[in-house]
Amino acid sequence: MFSPSIKELVQALRVLPGVGPKSAQKMALHLLERDDAGAERLAKALRHALDNVVRCGDCRTLTESNQCDICADPERDSTRLCIVEAPADIAAIEATGQFQGRYFVLMGHLSPIDGIGPEELGLEKLERLVATLGVEEVILATGSTVEGEATCHYIAQLLKPHNVEVSRLAQGVPIGGELEYVDGNTLALALQGRKKL
Amino acid sequence: MFSPSIKELVQALRVLPGVGPKSAQKMALHLLERDDAGAERLAKALRHALDNVVRCGDCRTLTESNQCDICADPERDSTRLCIVEAPADIAAIEATGQFQGRYFVLMGHLSPIDGIGPEELGLEKLERLVATLGVEEVILATGSTVEGEATCHYIAQLLKPHNVEVSRLAQGVPIGGELEYVDGNTLALALQGRKKL
Ligand SMILES: [Zn+2]
Ligand SMILES: [Zn+2]
Repeated sequence: MFSPSIKELVQALRVLPGVGPKSAQKMALHLLERDDAGAERLAKALRHALDNVVRCGDCRTLTESNQCDICADPERDSTRLCIVEAPADIAAIEATGQFQGRYFVLMGHLSPIDGIGPEELGLEKLERLVATLGVEEVILATGSTVEGEATCHYIAQLLKPHNVEVSRLAQGVPIGGELEYVDGNTLALALQGRKKL
Repeated sequence: MFSPSIKELVQALRVLPGVGPKSAQKMALHLLERDDAGAERLAKALRHALDNVVRCGDCRTLTESNQCDICADPERDSTRLCIVEAPADIAAIEATGQFQGRYFVLMGHLSPIDGIGPEELGLEKLERLVATLGVEEVILATGSTVEGEATCHYIAQLLKPHNVEVSRLAQGVPIGGELEYVDGNTLALALQGRKKL
């Protein structure tokens, strides 16, 4: 019953996480029937983000310049490096106000079944960064999922020859939980109670 | 923690119905971190729909030409006109296979508090269409909400001088329910059991 461009918009909206056919249809019709200004804003914002967002040359987070704000900030403590799976995890840790060091974003976790190995996570780049910055402590803040734990142990082994202290977020992060949904207090406690590996 | 274009994308995604700040952030990061191709497809589809989708000159549904497929179809019975609130309602009724007439889309319902009166619903256009097509029966398929009922009664009064039979979908549509979410069997029954007003 819908014209080709509406059908294509419905299909295209299904790339969004958690959006099934019914809600994709609802979203498409809402944009076209009722919210021209909002739809225009979304179209422009998406185009602009796609054309401008790149990965930080140092930490691999999403940014709009060669170096992200945190990596470019001379006030941050370069001797401490916190390793996370995703950019949203940086936001969650920053919100605790408990960490003044720098980050490295894996953009995922080891998952051989999906073809994600050490190269995809930028682990060579991580080793170079640890050497260049003169990092003294690496805090592993991967998720406490099976894959997050495996990734954590892999990186801990990898960094042994580099003579840095390697710690892991304390238990407190709920088992199976995604880091970005952990509340700030729990995360702050987990960070303070991090244990050496 | 996020760069300006990412923040703007998160804000822009909140125009989508049912999307709060947490899921908008999740969607934005998903698009930028993991699904470049999907994000590109969505950007293109949205641009294309915004530039090409218009209202049908006859029935006011969303389409890409002067006249939508149903209004342009000479096989449809022009003596029966079904009045719905939204394009999605046409899809729901078509899916029952119980109606071969034409449609008119109000794009809403009477709602004085939101400034939606007879003009916004195109009711003058509706009267002209009823005369031009030589409509014999008008089926009122507005939602069975308070506003849907009020709109139904207003249109029934409006069409009295036109000497057409006016019917309303039978009870069967759940009270307070939005038409597009009613299952096909219930909707088919409601259509068959429509009662004269
Ligand atoms: Zn960076
Ligand atoms: Zn039409």
